[in-house]
Amino acid sequence: MGGDRAPLEAVRGAYAASAEYNASFILVGDRQAIGQIAAADGMDLSHFDIVHAPETVNMNDDPLTVIRTKKNSSMTKSLELLAEGRGDAVVSTGNTGALFTGATLIVRKIKGVRRPAIGGILPTDPPVLLVDSGANTVVTEEYLEQFAVMGSIYMQSLYGLQSPRVGLLNNGVEECKGTELQVATYARLKELPGINFVGNVEADKIPQNACDVLVTDGFTGNILLKSFEGLGRLMLTSMKDLFYSNLRGKLSGLLVSDGTAALKRRFDAREHGGAPLLGISKPVIKAHGSSDAKAVKNAIRQAIAYAQSGTIVNIAKEIKMFAPARPDSPKDTAGQAARDGAEAAEREKETAK
Amino acid sequence: MGGDRAPLEAVRGAYAASAEYNASFILVGDRQAIGQIAAADGMDLSHFDIVHAPETVNMNDDPLTVIRTKKNSSMTKSLELLAEGRGDAVVSTGNTGALFTGATLIVRKIKGVRRPAIGGILPTDPPVLLVDSGANTVVTEEYLEQFAVMGSIYMQSLYGLQSPRVGLLNNGVEECKGTELQVATYARLKELPGINFVGNVEADKIPQNACDVLVTDGFTGNILLKSFEGLGRLMLTSMKDLFYSNLRGKLSGLLVSDGTAALKRRFDAREHGGAPLLGISKPVIKAHGSSDAKAVKNAIRQAIAYAQSGTIVNIAKEIKMFAPARPDSPKDTAGQAARDGAEAAEREKETAK
Repeated sequence: MGGDRAPLEAVRGAYAASAEYNASFILVGDRQAIGQIAAADGMDLSHFDIVHAPETVNMNDDPLTVIRTKKNSSMTKSLELLAEGRGDAVVSTGNTGALFTGATLIVRKIKGVRRPAIGGILPTDPPVLLVDSGANTVVTEEYLEQFAVMGSIYMQSLYGLQSPRVGLLNNGVEECKGTELQVATYARLKELPGINFVGNVEADKIPQNACDVLVTDGFTGNILLKSFEGLGRLMLTSMKDLFYSNLRGKLSGLLVSDGTAALKRRFDAREHGGAPLLGISKPVIKAHGSSDAKAVKNAIRQAIAYAQSGTIVNIAKEIKMFAPARPDSPKDTAGQAARDGAEAAEREKETAK
Repeated sequence: MGGDRAPLEAVRGAYAASAEYNASFILVGDRQAIGQIAAADGMDLSHFDIVHAPETVNMNDDPLTVIRTKKNSSMTKSLELLAEGRGDAVVSTGNTGALFTGATLIVRKIKGVRRPAIGGILPTDPPVLLVDSGANTVVTEEYLEQFAVMGSIYMQSLYGLQSPRVGLLNNGVEECKGTELQVATYARLKELPGINFVGNVEADKIPQNACDVLVTDGFTGNILLKSFEGLGRLMLTSMKDLFYSNLRGKLSGLLVSDGTAALKRRFDAREHGGAPLLGISKPVIKAHGSSDAKAVKNAIRQAIAYAQSGTIVNIAKEIKMFAPARPDSPKDTAGQAARDGAEAAEREKETAK
């Protein structure tokens, strides 16, 4: 119910997915609204389970409190269904922070994972998994080390890469580059068994097939992912201007329409499914807030693949090598946690135990 | 002497500039190499001063020591000439860290400036000045506040904007977004007199004319600037592939050649001159390491405009409001400084006084 175009496009996307994929579907949302959409579109939803959840988590809701206060939101309900084993994966187009906090509180982390992270896909060729693409604004070298492990396993399982190349996002290639965090992380990743660490990666090298998994904190990751989004959009707009400016432009556009369609697909966020919440003990996929039916369908395809892949079992196995967990770094201060929704919520939960 | 294509393209660029701009020129570099280039190209350099500097600062040289150990490098010599008043501006295509450290040590900061910063231009329309685009990996809210002041004055003087819009690069628009640093900086910028603060700017909004000056730390700034560089290059390559793939593509390309030429100019780093070292007491312009003659000429044009603009006098006036300087934030630790070339070098200098 929470995306920019929900519930209409979510229902349409799920309906399209149900025709194509061998899976069963639970729609979690306002029963009446869903019924109206089905009637208007002529969709027969008799093969869907519908769980009524009339409340909506909005983009402006505080991730820290909304999951507790909006018990009947589609987000809370669907995460509860997942936790109870009544579903195998959740796809949401809603508030990222709330979904991340909710997944951590309700579905819970994989044992041994210090902090879950969002794995966003950068629209390069081949694609790059960016971990963390937005959840944890402040991280330690241990979190980043675990992001590398989780991202690596995800790209092995979902993209069929035998030995994904893991890069550390940095402002230079030399081992000494970056802040203390990058220097300490470099030293750890270099020694990490089972990880194909290719060193520091500068941002201008990302489109040049420099790595398969790119590790960074959620603040820098957010800036990078959004700069790709903004520039991809600018690129498509510029080409549109070029080809729709006048008759010559239109003719020109016709001549290369196959090529421009391929470019459009590549930079279209809707093509890339959604971002997995890595480190959560069951598959939760965050699709873009502006997702249309096609984007929702692609995110569902990805959720099915994720659920069938054994990724989470493999992450749980690998992450055991980090046990017993090292104590938190002193950088991980209370002031920061108060702003990082998921982190604070989790701490709260641990205190309550 | 230190750029990827120096001294050939530097000499050619200066020669082209001397034909177009009303200025006198000092070439600082290996006299013999310069003479050979002039002879081979048939350039008459009799109206140039040539100061012999046979040593070269390389890209791998340590910024901390190279300025002291390579006394006869073109970089050291040219900064000394500037400091002595024998020139009005320096343009360099060399090692950014070394130039930044050298400018701080030899030319010195404007009084009251806590840390100089690099002002990189993002190739948006209209352009955005990114401060800091790479010098200070770790900053305090006070540095960022000063970056806003310096960037604002630069865009007023050089781009004729009456009231440049200053944005803070962040992972969301709300005042509470980001790390402690962004929250504290937001609070300061909001209250800063004479600054047209437009709030937090997300990276995907940068191409949408969100601000004229974008303030951030040098680590994030480096990532952002390089991601624009890498994606701009990807965009131009993609269009080239489109228009050179086959006969249809070539015909298509011909039809929109004006439009593609304009796009190419926009994303071509060579068109944007160079990046000013804001906070240094005299004009120092860093041109891209891969600059060709055209890029060097544009950087020279910008250096002349910078020297004539009164920007530095205006920055000096405005920065007085920060005096007496507040003490350093405790975040500004010694460990970090040891890696931030310029910062450490400067501290050393202050100790030696």
